[in-house]
Formats: sequence, structure tokens, C-alpha cells
Amino acid sequence: MAKIYTYDCTLRDGEQCEGINLSLEDKLLIARRLDEFGVDFIEGGFPASNPKDIAFFKAVRHMRFEHSRIAAFGSTCRKGVAALDDPGLADLLECGAPVVTIVGKTWDKQVTLALQAELSENLRMIRDSVAHLKAAGRRVVFDAEHFFDGYVSNKEYALECLRAAHEAGADSIDLCETNGGALPFDVERIVAAAVAEFPGQNFGIHCHNDSGCAVANTLAAVRAGAVQVQGTMNGIGERVGNTDLLTVIANLELKMNAETVGRSNLQQLTDVSHYMAEITGAPVSAHNPYSGHSAFAHKGGLHASAIARFPQAYEHADPKLVGNRARMVVSELAGKASLLQKAAALGIDLEASGANVQTILDDIKNREARGYTYEVADGSLALLLMRHLGEYSPVFTLESFRVIVDDREDTGALAKDAASEATIKIHVGDQRFVATGEGTGPVGALDSALRMAITEFYPQVSNLELVDYKVRLPDESQGTGAVTRVTITTADAHGIFGTVGVSENVIEASWNALVESIEYGLIRMGRKNG
Amino acid sequence: MAKIYTYDCTLRDGEQCEGINLSLEDKLLIARRLDEFGVDFIEGGFPASNPKDIAFFKAVRHMRFEHSRIAAFGSTCRKGVAALDDPGLADLLECGAPVVTIVGKTWDKQVTLALQAELSENLRMIRDSVAHLKAAGRRVVFDAEHFFDGYVSNKEYALECLRAAHEAGADSIDLCETNGGALPFDVERIVAAAVAEFPGQNFGIHCHNDSGCAVANTLAAVRAGAVQVQGTMNGIGERVGNTDLLTVIANLELKMNAETVGRSNLQQLTDVSHYMAEITGAPVSAHNPYSGHSAFAHKGGLHASAIARFPQAYEHADPKLVGNRARMVVSELAGKASLLQKAAALGIDLEASGANVQTILDDIKNREARGYTYEVADGSLALLLMRHLGEYSPVFTLESFRVIVDDREDTGALAKDAASEATIKIHVGDQRFVATGEGTGPVGALDSALRMAITEFYPQVSNLELVDYKVRLPDESQGTGAVTRVTITTADAHGIFGTVGVSENVIEASWNALVESIEYGLIRMGRKNG
Repeated sequence: MAKIYTYDCTLRDGEQCEGINLSLEDKLLIARRLDEFGVDFIEGGFPASNPKDIAFFKAVRHMRFEHSRIAAFGSTCRKGVAALDDPGLADLLECGAPVVTIVGKTWDKQVTLALQAELSENLRMIRDSVAHLKAAGRRVVFDAEHFFDGYVSNKEYALECLRAAHEAGADSIDLCETNGGALPFDVERIVAAAVAEFPGQNFGIHCHNDSGCAVANTLAAVRAGAVQVQGTMNGIGERVGNTDLLTVIANLELKMNAETVGRSNLQQLTDVSHYMAEITGAPVSAHNPYSGHSAFAHKGGLHASAIARFPQAYEHADPKLVGNRARMVVSELAGKASLLQKAAALGIDLEASGANVQTILDDIKNREARGYTYEVADGSLALLLMRHLGEYSPVFTLESFRVIVDDREDTGALAKDAASEATIKIHVGDQRFVATGEGTGPVGALDSALRMAITEFYPQVSNLELVDYKVRLPDESQGTGAVTRVTITTADAHGIFGTVGVSENVIEASWNALVESIEYGLIRMGRKNG
Repeated sequence: MAKIYTYDCTLRDGEQCEGINLSLEDKLLIARRLDEFGVDFIEGGFPASNPKDIAFFKAVRHMRFEHSRIAAFGSTCRKGVAALDDPGLADLLECGAPVVTIVGKTWDKQVTLALQAELSENLRMIRDSVAHLKAAGRRVVFDAEHFFDGYVSNKEYALECLRAAHEAGADSIDLCETNGGALPFDVERIVAAAVAEFPGQNFGIHCHNDSGCAVANTLAAVRAGAVQVQGTMNGIGERVGNTDLLTVIANLELKMNAETVGRSNLQQLTDVSHYMAEITGAPVSAHNPYSGHSAFAHKGGLHASAIARFPQAYEHADPKLVGNRARMVVSELAGKASLLQKAAALGIDLEASGANVQTILDDIKNREARGYTYEVADGSLALLLMRHLGEYSPVFTLESFRVIVDDREDTGALAKDAASEATIKIHVGDQRFVATGEGTGPVGALDSALRMAITEFYPQVSNLELVDYKVRLPDESQGTGAVTRVTITTADAHGIFGTVGVSENVIEASWNALVESIEYGLIRMGRKNG
């Protein structure tokens, strides 16, 4: 079984995607998860380009990775500048990444028209830069920009560029289909030509999806001899995106007898895909290959009976191998089975309870149509089930809350920490509590007031910590009148759980999610301790 | 130039997509648009399957199509039943469609395990059904279900199935990659084998995207000799979807020297894609090849200067050929060239202004590091540039605002519409205005109060409409203390523009985006009118 190296460029090329801006924290979380998944190389960014990427390379030096190696990205030295004197290359070395990837031009017209340099000077820049980085002890990847257009335009010159990198000792020459418009048969032919020209040289492939063929182009390159595949998580990237590295990994492992992250780690694929979507804010399409919610969903009545008799007939791969699962759509039975399973995981035996499972399913469907989602809100789902089973009694009842957000241009920055104030009035048993909390934002103020109000009765509330707060607008085209969904993640001694609130008013949606967080947290604590 | 026939199955296979349910009216609108676009065949549905499809075939008989022919979809006759006596085939003939497409099995295991029939009986069903429909004067397409799995499992039998359809006179044999898991090199090899076996027979290809290769598989089949391509609009369909027929059409026309809808109609492609999205309710991803909003958008600062000198270097095809357009996007990675271009698009000549572009870029970078994003917030970007150029003077100044969100459990639903109240105090010139607005949520209340306060001075504010409101938490792992980014889309007589606000307080972030929306809207109105 051939080993194919996986090279993720989500943190560099993926961030070129319109609408995606990753914080330093985001980038570190992504790198951590890529390492757990077993990706070989993680391209962290441009150390010369912006302060956030510089901070990333600094932070990542103190992290221990089990598997992945970090790569810094940059360009060859500038025209007319020796590699030794080039500030960009100096930054690449200074950032401390063990792998350095530099992009260089290989399309003759790009050199003469865009770079406005002599063809020979471009060869010098490639050779000099690769040699300089190798001399400094780095693993060097040469990204051959526009190689496929270059090969078509001037085959001899394109290959000369590769020769410069090859002779200077590049560890991998990654052929970049920069414009994304090539088709697989051309990619296969051209990669094969490059591989044949430089025996013993490792080649990689980097594609974009402009013709809708990025995955196929990448696989075609592997067939032609490339041993390293570049791509991004869920294929995010500029224009139509980069190669979806996850789909490539699944195809290589399951259909091309290659080893990438290994069959065991492959089962993380669906989880990795959704994790990355949460962090980047770019949702995984339900129709994404392998990891999509619908990737193994069957709707057609035509097929349902056949599937039962011969499952392979309608599944190209076993969904378990990539951590996904088959679903029957509009099938009551499948809905019931998974709800029973989910309930059991929450410690609720629905079958033994004698509850009408169909009524509960209908309730969930109706709520989901109104904007709720229970995929991550297991706390809210547990409370919903308890309500249906008659096992729910509120921890407290609300009389009223009021949130005031005050902004005075003349109070200056000092007052900013107390810009929001919330007052809540609640009843616990037959006692009435009134409390006022302050916060930077209205939700923080509400959280603080609620905790103050109930802490006398439930001192254990101090063990609950709100660790994540997300706002989504499930239907974004209705302006400020749209429904807002707030999900809150709460940590307690046993782990984390999620709750959800929905309302046209973001404060009320937050309040609902907050209340369920406290309620479920207290119930769960009681159950686990008792 | 080879003619490749286009066969759309949006109305049949596309409707298998989870979440998509087309009304009769929807189906007729789609058929009309497909005809205008110049698609050769439109598969309308199963006439035997449901009343809506029966109504479709009835209605479509009275419509005049310039180009397209309508196909009805069904199966071969049942096992043990003569074609002449088969009710399904009778429905196909009765519906009056000039083209009939029938699916039949070609995978030996499917025949024995799922259909539970003798292999010879399946051959009889294919031969008998095709001959019966041909005798009735129809154009017959035989959809060879699971042909690729069948060929791998039992090559001889799979080809025998094709022979039955071929000898019975099928006008086209469309090889179906039913499971969607095949890769292009296998598709090419297997289609070539089928084509070689039956000289003179027309072949087609029908793929699904489960391995992310539907477009590439379809093109591979064309290379191997297929002359008809099946697919759906924007690739909608069961699981991960069918082949995106639009991407295939663009690739065939622009990259494979084939004729489908013709170069002139090809310019409708982007419009067709978005039209179909409107009707089906399945949005076109911004990252869709060819038709996506970002398909020709450039963000990287690395590339911007190069694009200006050598546009082909970063566009795989001229966007005009498919009715789309190129766009420049500003980001934290952007360089001077893209900022100058973006400013020019906003009517600001940065070069002529003598402004220090580097200072502006640094300001943008710093703001982006704090959570701002200007990619969609062109209104905020324009204001930022005006500030740097000293051309900005505020439309009004804020003294203070206060937002109160009130929730009383006992007030009931009636009071919900006025749950939020905002009071703002502003100065315009030397006048002071105080106004209070109400709304379902705090942002609606602020918007309403602000409009009331300035409407006396700026009555034209009524021409600005807030059409979209988004909340994002760029760094979500800090709970309620995280920075919140609000983006607002505003419509005026000239189109739409975006503004952005950032704060730890969601209300303040909303306020900032709102103020810039009103400010830029008023400035833009003055500029365009004056």
C-alpha cells in the first residue's frame, strides 16, 4: 500500500476564502485537530505577511504535536535580490517552522508579464531560494505556481523551473494548478511528464476547484506518481475553493489502496469536517461527499426495499468507515430508532417510559422548523424529553427580566465594562429573589444576574461555567426580524453540554438558552451526585 | 466540434434531494427555463408515480418548446409480465412524452438479490420493454442502472444487458453510475469498453457525486465516446447530489471543444443557476464553479498586482462567457493594488488623493485583527477611506443611547412586539433630537429610534431599507465576553451595500453597523443624486 502524504493548507490558502477570518485561537484549534486526525503537514500561514500569522508561529512552537509538522509559507526571493539578503526568506527561517514552502513562477508569461523579470532571473530565484533554505536545515517544498498553464505555454521552460528546484534539493515539488481550470486527463498527462523527467524526486499536487474537478485532478496526479496531496478542510478557499482534502483522503484510503491518515483515524473524518465548519464558520454542506448530513441519506421509495435486501447496491462506501451513518429520510422507523438511541445516551429509557415517541418526534420536527436544532443541544433535548415524560419541574420561575444597555459617548473607555445591566426577578419554591448583574454585553449581564439570584438556593451553580456562546440566524434574509438561534455550551465537573434558545429577539433567545443551561446543569449534577 | 446532447433530470432525480419538493408550477417554470437555455432533453418525472407528475405531462403537452424535448421516466416491465401488459409502460406511453427513458438492471447481484429474478428474465425484460416502446414510435433512452458496479462484478453479463437494449433499438444507452463512488479513470475505461462493443450505438452518462467526482466522471465518459450527458441544475439530488449539468456544460464548451447549448446561450449559465436556486429553494453556493458569487472573486494581496498586469493568470475562464463577473475582495492579506482597485469601485481615487496607502492598509489590518471584516462591508470601507482622506464629517453625533429589553412572563404574546425599547439622543448640526423606538428585538428598536431622530433633518432616510442582519463571533471560545461582529446589508435606489460593527457588546456592535449604514446611505444618495 502506497503512502501518500497529506498537506493541509486551510490556515493559509483556506483563509483566502471570502468571509473567513480566523483568529489566532481558531488557527491553534485547527492545527491541534489536524494533528489528532493524523495529517502530515500543516501550513500555518505567511510569517512575513501579518501579525496574526507571526503570533501563530510563535505559539505553535510551544505546542507538542503527535504527528503533524508545521510549514511556513512564502515566496522565492525577489528579483535582483540574493536569497541571503531577502527579508521574506529571513522571516521564513526566523519563524522556526521545520518545513518551509515557497512558491515560485513556472509559467513563462507570468514571469515576463506579471513579474517583469528575465526568464533566467526567475530560474536563479528558485535555485537560490531553495538552496538557501536547505542550507539552513529546513525541509523545503517548492510550490510550482501555474505549472499546468506553464507546461502548455512553454513546456521546456516550465520543466527548467522544476529542474532549478530539483537540483537545489527541494524535498518535494508540488505542482500547483493555480487557476483551477484544468481537467483530470490533462493533469495526469502533465504530472506524468514531470515525474518522468526527474527520477527520484518527490512530487505533490495542489489544486483548485474552478472547473469542479479539484478532487479528480488530485487523484489523477497521484495516479501519475505524485506522493503528496495538498488541500483544505471541506475545500474552503478563494473563488470556488481548494481541493477538499477530506474527500481526497477518503477516496485514497477507500478506493485507491493508499495510506494517508490510516483506516482507524479515517473514522474521525465526519467529526473533523464538522469541527472545522464550526471553527471557520463555513458550514459543511449537507451534500458534502462523505461527511455531509445527507451523504448517506436515502429518500427514494424506489430504493428502500432494495436497500434492505442488498445494502451495497445503494452505498458506495460503508459510512462507518468515515464516521458517518446511513439515514432513511421520511422514515418514521429510523427517526424513532435514533431518538431512542439518543435518549438512552442521555440516561432516559423512552421505551420503558411508555411515552408516545411519535408525539415527541412531531414536537421536535415542529421546533426544528421554527429554528431549533438539537444536534449539539443535548441539554435542551433532555429537558424536552423530561417535559414529555412529565418528569420536568422547573428549577425556578421567572417573574420578569429587564436588560439595559447604556452608551454615552462622553463616559470614555473606563465605563465600558459596565455598559450592560440586567435585573431579574424569579421565584424558587415560595421565595422571591431579585438580583441585578452587570456585564460588558447584555448576555453576560443576564448570566451574572441569574447566578446571583439563585445562588442562595442552589450554591452548586458556581460549578457551572458558560464556555461558549454562539448566535446563528437560521434564515438570514429577513433583516432584524429574523429568528435568532443562540446555543450555549456549559461545562461542569462531568464534561460539557449544549442548550439552545430561539426567538426573534436575540436577548430572549440568549435568556432561554441560559435558563436551560442552568436548569439542565443543576439536574445533571443532582443525578450524577445522587 | 462534436455535438454533445444535454439531458436534464432535475425534475425527476433532482427532486429526490432531501428538502426539495417542487410544485407543478415550479416544474413548469423549470422546464420553460431549461428550454430557453437550450437543453436538449428534459426528464419531467414518473408518470406512473404520482398525481403531480401526471399533471405535469398533461400541462406540458400544451406548451411550445423551442428546443427541448420532454422525457418521461419509468422502469422496464416487471418480472414475469410481458411489456405489452405492463401497467407502468402503458402509463409511459399514455403520458404522451416523445421521449421515454426506462431504467433496467445490469448488475448481476442486483438482479438475483434485490429483484430476485433469473439473469435471463432480466435480459428479456430489457429487450421486450425497449422493443415495445420503439414500436410505439418513441425515442427510447435505456438507463443502465449500476452499470459500473455491474461491469466490475460480471463484465459479460453487464454487456449482455446493454446488448438486449441495443438490439431492441434503444436510441441511447445511458450508463448510470448509480452509487456515485466511481473514479474518473475507471469510468473512462468502462465506458470505452461499452462503446467498443457496440459500434454505431449512442451512449450517454449519468453520475452521482458521492466521491466528489461526478463532473470529472461525466467528462471522462465523453472522452471515452459518450455523446449524451445527464445531470441536474446545480447538481441537486439524493445524498450528495447528481452531476451538476451546468458545470459540465461550461467545461464541455470552454475546455473540451464540444457543442452543447452553444456559446451564445452559455452566457445565460449564471442566471440559469440562480433562477433554479430560487425555484428549488436550494441556494447556489457562493463557491459553485462558474455560477457562484465568489467563483471569480480574488482576495489574496499576493495576486492583485499580477492580475492587473496579466488577467489570464488568475482566471481559468473569462467570466463573461458564463454570464458571471470578476470581483476584487479586500482582506487582511490584501495589498495595495487590490485596495486601490476597490477604492476606485467605490468612487474614490486613492492614488490621486495623495493619501498614504500603507497607513490605510495598516489600519485595515489592525481592524481585521480586532474582528472587523470589510469583504462585504463596502459601505464601512468607504467611510474608513473618507476618514483617512479627511473627507468624512459625521452626519450626526451621538450623545447617548439606552436600550431596554423587558420580559414579563405574565404579559403574554400581545406584548411581545414591543419587548424592546431604545432611546437615543443625537445632535445634528446644532439641533438636538431625542427619540424612542420600539421593536421585537433591541436592534430593530435602535433602528427605529435612529430613523425617527434624524428623519426631520434627513427625510431621505426613508429610502434606506435594512435588508439583512448577521451576527458572527469571530472568536467564539470566549463565552459571552467574546467580540461580536455585526454586518448589516442596506438597500437603496442604487442597489445594496454592507456595513460592519464590532464590539464585545452585541448591541453596541449593532449600533455601529447601523450608524454606518445610515451615514453611508445618506452620503451615497447625495453623491449619486448630486
